[in-house]
Parts: sequence; structure tokens; C-alpha cells
Amino acid sequence: MELDIGNALGGSPGLTEDTLEHLDERVGIAHERIEQGRADDEHGYAALNLPETVDTDAIRAAVEPFGTPAAVLTVGIGGSALGAATISAALADQTDVEAHFLDNVDPEDTAELLDSLPLDDTVVNVVSRSGTTAETLSNFLVVREAMDDAGVDWTEQTFVTTGDDGNLRNLADTHDLPSLKVPEGVPGRFSAISTVGLACAALQGLDIEGVVAGAQTAMDDLSGSLYDSPAYAYGAVCYGLAERGALTNAMMPYAESLEYFAEWFAQLWAESLGKEQVGQTPARALGATDQHSQLQLYRAGPRDKLVTLVRPREREDIDIPETDLEGLSYLGGSGLGDLLDAEFEATEASLAAEGRPNVRIEIDAVDAEGIGELLYAMEAATVMYGELAGLSTFTQPAVEWGKKAARGLLGGGDFAEAEAVADKRTFTIE
Amino acid sequence: MELDIGNALGGSPGLTEDTLEHLDERVGIAHERIEQGRADDEHGYAALNLPETVDTDAIRAAVEPFGTPAAVLTVGIGGSALGAATISAALADQTDVEAHFLDNVDPEDTAELLDSLPLDDTVVNVVSRSGTTAETLSNFLVVREAMDDAGVDWTEQTFVTTGDDGNLRNLADTHDLPSLKVPEGVPGRFSAISTVGLACAALQGLDIEGVVAGAQTAMDDLSGSLYDSPAYAYGAVCYGLAERGALTNAMMPYAESLEYFAEWFAQLWAESLGKEQVGQTPARALGATDQHSQLQLYRAGPRDKLVTLVRPREREDIDIPETDLEGLSYLGGSGLGDLLDAEFEATEASLAAEGRPNVRIEIDAVDAEGIGELLYAMEAATVMYGELAGLSTFTQPAVEWGKKAARGLLGGGDFAEAEAVADKRTFTIE
Repeated sequence: MELDIGNALGGSPGLTEDTLEHLDERVGIAHERIEQGRADDEHGYAALNLPETVDTDAIRAAVEPFGTPAAVLTVGIGGSALGAATISAALADQTDVEAHFLDNVDPEDTAELLDSLPLDDTVVNVVSRSGTTAETLSNFLVVREAMDDAGVDWTEQTFVTTGDDGNLRNLADTHDLPSLKVPEGVPGRFSAISTVGLACAALQGLDIEGVVAGAQTAMDDLSGSLYDSPAYAYGAVCYGLAERGALTNAMMPYAESLEYFAEWFAQLWAESLGKEQVGQTPARALGATDQHSQLQLYRAGPRDKLVTLVRPREREDIDIPETDLEGLSYLGGSGLGDLLDAEFEATEASLAAEGRPNVRIEIDAVDAEGIGELLYAMEAATVMYGELAGLSTFTQPAVEWGKKAARGLLGGGDFAEAEAVADKRTFTIE
Repeated sequence: MELDIGNALGGSPGLTEDTLEHLDERVGIAHERIEQGRADDEHGYAALNLPETVDTDAIRAAVEPFGTPAAVLTVGIGGSALGAATISAALADQTDVEAHFLDNVDPEDTAELLDSLPLDDTVVNVVSRSGTTAETLSNFLVVREAMDDAGVDWTEQTFVTTGDDGNLRNLADTHDLPSLKVPEGVPGRFSAISTVGLACAALQGLDIEGVVAGAQTAMDDLSGSLYDSPAYAYGAVCYGLAERGALTNAMMPYAESLEYFAEWFAQLWAESLGKEQVGQTPARALGATDQHSQLQLYRAGPRDKLVTLVRPREREDIDIPETDLEGLSYLGGSGLGDLLDAEFEATEASLAAEGRPNVRIEIDAVDAEGIGELLYAMEAATVMYGELAGLSTFTQPAVEWGKKAARGLLGGGDFAEAEAVADKRTFTIE
């Protein structure tokens, strides 16, 4: 992975080379803290050891009974779905096994998906760390009933990834379902390079070893200096810019196959760094499409943004046919990929010309190694940002309140939070 | 449509009832300006007349030659795609005609899509106001060649929506293609309720008259007081909160069928209001999924956000089956939709408990009338916000620079902007 921060220097907000020097000293100290956390397998820091601790052979062995299904339906939400979805989307061109995700509790969407799936040749991949996540378990109960109704033996086609105990573990034990354990000390949003993110890819027959090898490359690039470590440099630059007013980070990959990556990044960044009244807001974007949607704002709106542009150095291209259409002849001889690259560089320059900070991230290709490297590097960047900002990177205390309220509303217990819902102040305009 | 701004009052940032009174006076003045613009069919303001000026019979007649295809492939980008995609996604359960969109120039994605489509039974719906948009025309040339290669006569299966002249108009004239005109005075991002947004839906056999009727309802609700007009009230409340520091507006529908709506809104809001160093940044979110991704940040991060929650009052539900799984029995007897509604209300209350402003928008259902009403109301809200902020709501000057640069890079002429790209400052870390 290569990081180019040239356009983050000198703009407004912007960094100077002096600022980088100061940040570099702090990166050295933070790196030591992170290394200590990794050495001790501390909660969260343990995620950065996954390239060494994940057992791909065990994952392969666990999914082996399912052979090659027509489809894999992953039932999970948040960190239990986004890593798997990101890897599957990046590598979709390398498998005939379709991947689908039930990561919401929308009844219409669920019904439509279940109607369209070949249930007798679909593996259901249920993922929940606690084994009690209401959305995931509700969806699983609905899927299980649909399989029953279709005359399919769900116990033959269900795969489980969960913790040592809880409802899902009991279910797996009772019905002797193939299963894997979520790793210890790894928060959901940091679990892409583990059983949680890789089981789906393995069920699709994808190159999970390549994903881990890519992550290993990024891990080996970590060092005590931001000048030698693209991941840490990215975290430090984002932190430095946020301190200077770039409160939004627009993550803008130029590849449709990385659209899910931007969503995965948004969770990683928001849940890890959004606390104690600080945290850079991740905005999901997609190049070149969002040049026709968000670029006006990025270039001319408030000076509160960093734009991160991501692209692969290589991709299969398609030639744009020669044409007799007047005014378009210049396109003939180029490829769609050439056009996309020209737009990438034009967007960068367009922002830079207005002093709007932007950063370029390049991976060799959107392949197994490339996505593994990118995912790991962004996790390390997040941890570095969290250290520099003095945050509890690995917790998400603000989501518990709503879970209790929802549970109370559904009659799952007495919770003061549910009563607060009833007290809502209304001011209605119709 | 019903708007509930109770949770936008009293928080931090927050409005007071006094602020509403002050805003209401300004809404009255802005309303007069808007009414004058509508009466004169001024550029942009004319979009708010579309429910009266769009000719659905003409749209139906224009697409009639195509009968009922297996699929419609819309080739367009930005405002030429997002409105159509939003309507098609909202009404997907009401048609068997699949809708696909080529709204990016990603070669891998394009190749995959063309491979998967039944080209001999697909109508290609090309949309470009100018008839020269590089991305759209390039994609069309690729699609046309793929049809040639598949032995399909593309001239029999291509539908065009464009202006009075330009490449696309010439193409339509030369090959006698069925076509429609883009409306006068309507910027692309305000064109959902016009030929631009409705042709795709008509090709799918959807209820375009219902969409327009819904828009008409929202139009009839416009008035000189925010207390009587949900659309204007939404625009005014967003403006008031942005002035008080809510620089981000997270648009969070609780329905998968409205996921595209959030993207459409993001373009409308960003391109219309993001200029002169101001403008609220739209963040696309999706409930309940993003409770497990963005809610931590929304509830505990910087106090710079408004969250807009949107839901239908009615939807088809699916019962969650009764279960023997310990600790989950409380879910039995509820539906997935009940769970989704409980999460909606829990999220609202969770934000309100921390004084984080949020607004509730409800439509009766995600159907033709509902989506028409919602789209029109958000357009009117955008125009109101632009008036209150004194912005040129209907221009997008900051996107031209990059277009010239990209064109220059591809050899389409001499542009100083392309030379600026070559001067990029690099600072590489690998």
C-alpha cells in the first residue's frame, strides 16, 4: 500500500512538514504502547495480531462439509457482517458462489431475499459474538422457518460463528452444527481478518490465505515512524487534520468493488473514535459517481473536510469504442478505467487547487492480498488515531442505551430507557 | 407526510420555540420569493411546478413501444440516475421488470453487469441533459457494442432522455429512437418528478401517476408558515440547527427500500447548499443497521450533527417465530417490523437523552404516493434552506474545474486544469 499525503500539506485546514515532525515523535510513543498491547494480547490491541493468530486451516476445515453451495446467506449486523461483506464484494469476480447479507430487520427486504434464494442450496452463516443480538437472532428464526417451510433441513445447512456460550453456542451444540469461535479480545469492527470476516469467504471458496497474507504485509510495515508506516501515517494525518478542523473524513474509493469497504471503514472509524465529544465523522462516498453528487460540497462548502481517495493501481479495463458522435471522439482509444483514473486525478487536483486537504491511498489491485492489506492498514490507522487522541478506541458505550430501550419496548424486561421513549416530546407539523 | 421536530427543541445544538417564531417570519418571506420564482418559471424554482407540468401520458406513450422487457438498464450519472434509482428501489416490489443502473465508469463492474443481463430483452435508458456527459456516453458506447456483439439491434432497444440538441439528441434523431426531453429550468438533482426520473419507472410499468399525485400532495402543503408546511419546516429547522453548529445531517431511513433515497437526498443537499464555505454535510445512513455502526458517534461524538429518521407508518410485516432459545422468547409474537419500529423509537430517545437533535419524518407507506410526496418535500425543503441561507441553490460551479481537468487528461483539448494535475505535490509513504 502506498500513501501520498502531498495534498494534505499546506492547505486549509492543512499540515506543515513541521507538524509532521511533531506528530512523528508522538507516533513513536504511541507505537510503543500499541506494541505492548499486542505483546500482552490486550483487548483490542489483540486485533493487530490476527494475521499471526488466525487459523485459516481451521476455517477451511470447519466449512468443508458444505462443499460448494449456490449461495451463502450471512445473518449478522454491524461488525458481524461488514468485514465479511467487504471481503466478498472485493473478491466477487473470483467465485460463482453468491453472497447475500441479512444485516437489517426490514420485513419487506427479508421476504424478497428469501423468495429469491435457492434455499435448498444455500448455506446460512449466522454470526453474533454474544449469541443474543436481537436483529440477528430474529432474522435467523425467520430464515430457519422459511427453510422448514421449503422442506429443507436447516441443521444440514447452517454454520455458526459465536462465542463460548450464549444462545447461538447452545444451538450449535444441540444440533451439532459446524461452528467457529469469535476470537478473544477482538471487537467486532476489528474482526474482518478473523473467523468472523473470513468464514463467508471460505464458504465461497475464496482465497482467505491471500487476505491474511495481505494483512501480514501491512502488519510488517508498522514501525515507530510515520515516515515508514503508511497505516500509522494515515492515522496521524487524519488526527492532525481533525485537530485543525477537518471534522469529516470522506472515504471515496474509485472502484465499485470497494463500495462496501467504505461502509466497513465508516463503522470502524465512527465507533472507535466517536466519543467524549470528539471524533471525525466518516462520510461514505464513491468515485467517480459522487463527483456528480458530493464534490460541489467538498470543494466549496465548509473547510471541515478531508477527502481520502483510494484506488487500485491495476484493474481489468474495457476499451471505449471509437465513435462517430461529434465531440466524443477523444474518448475512443481510452478505456473506462483510463477515464476513471483521469477523474480520480482531476478530483484530487480540483480539491488541492482550493486548498482542500486530500490523501491518496493506492493498493496494487482489488484482490485477496490487496483487500487484506487495506483492511489491516485502516485498523492500525484507527488504533493510532485513538492513541493520539487519548480515546478508548475499543469500546462503544453509547450504543447500549438504545439496545435496552428497544428490548424494553418489545416486552423483554423492565428498562428505564424504554420509559424514556414514552416521554418523547412531540411537536408535529402536517 | 408528518414531521415531528420535538427532539430538535431544547438540545445542544437545539432550537427554542422562540427561534421557531423568528424562523417562521423568514419562512413567510422566502415563501413569497419561491412563489414568485414558480410563477415566472425561473430556473430551479420551475422544479417545484413539476407535479403540474410533467406529462405522464406523454411518458407512457413514449415508452409504449418497448412493452414489458425483462430489464431496464439506465445509463446516467448524478441527477440523471439517482431520482430514477430512488423511485425504482422504493417500488421494486410492484414490478417484475428489473432495474439496473450504470452510474459509474468502473470497467469491472460494467463487464459483470453486461454479462449478467439478458441483452436481447433489456431496454437501455440513456439519460444526459447535455448529451455530452463523458461517463454516460462512454458507458453507452460500451453497452451499444455489447449489444452488437450479442447480435441485438440496439436501435430497437434504446430509449433516450436528453435536451434539444447535443450528441444524444443527434443520435436519437439519426436512428429514430423513442425519446423524451429533459424539462426546462430543472436542475438534474431536482428532476426526479419529471421525464428524467419517471421514464425508468414507466418502462418498468410502475405507477408514475401515483408518484406525481404524491408530489402534488406535498406541493399543496406548501404555505407561508412553517407551522403548516412540513417541507418548509424541515428546511428551516435544518438551517436553524446548522447555524447553531449541526454541520452534518445524517439521513437515516428505516426501510431498505429507502436506502437509495438517502443517496438521492445527499446529492440534493450537498450540491444545492454546499457553497460559499457553508452548507450542511449530508451523511447517508440506514436504520437499524447503522445503529451498529454510526450511533456511537452520533450520540457521543462532536455536537455537530442532526439525525433525520424516516419511516413508513405501514409496512408488510413478518412474524418472528416463537422459539425455545433461552432469553429470546420475548421476540416471539412480534414482527420484524415491530422490532424495526422499536429500534427507531429507541434511537430517537437515545439521542434525545443526550440532547442530540433529531427529527422524525413519517410517510404513510413506501408506495408511489409516499415516495412522490417525500421526494417533493425534500426538494422544497432544500429550496427553503437555500433561501434562508442566501445561497444560489440551483448552481454547482465547483464541479466544472474537475470536468475540464479530466477531459484535458484524456486528450480532449487543452485545459489549464489538466496541467495543474501534473503539478501535484507528492509526499509518499510506503
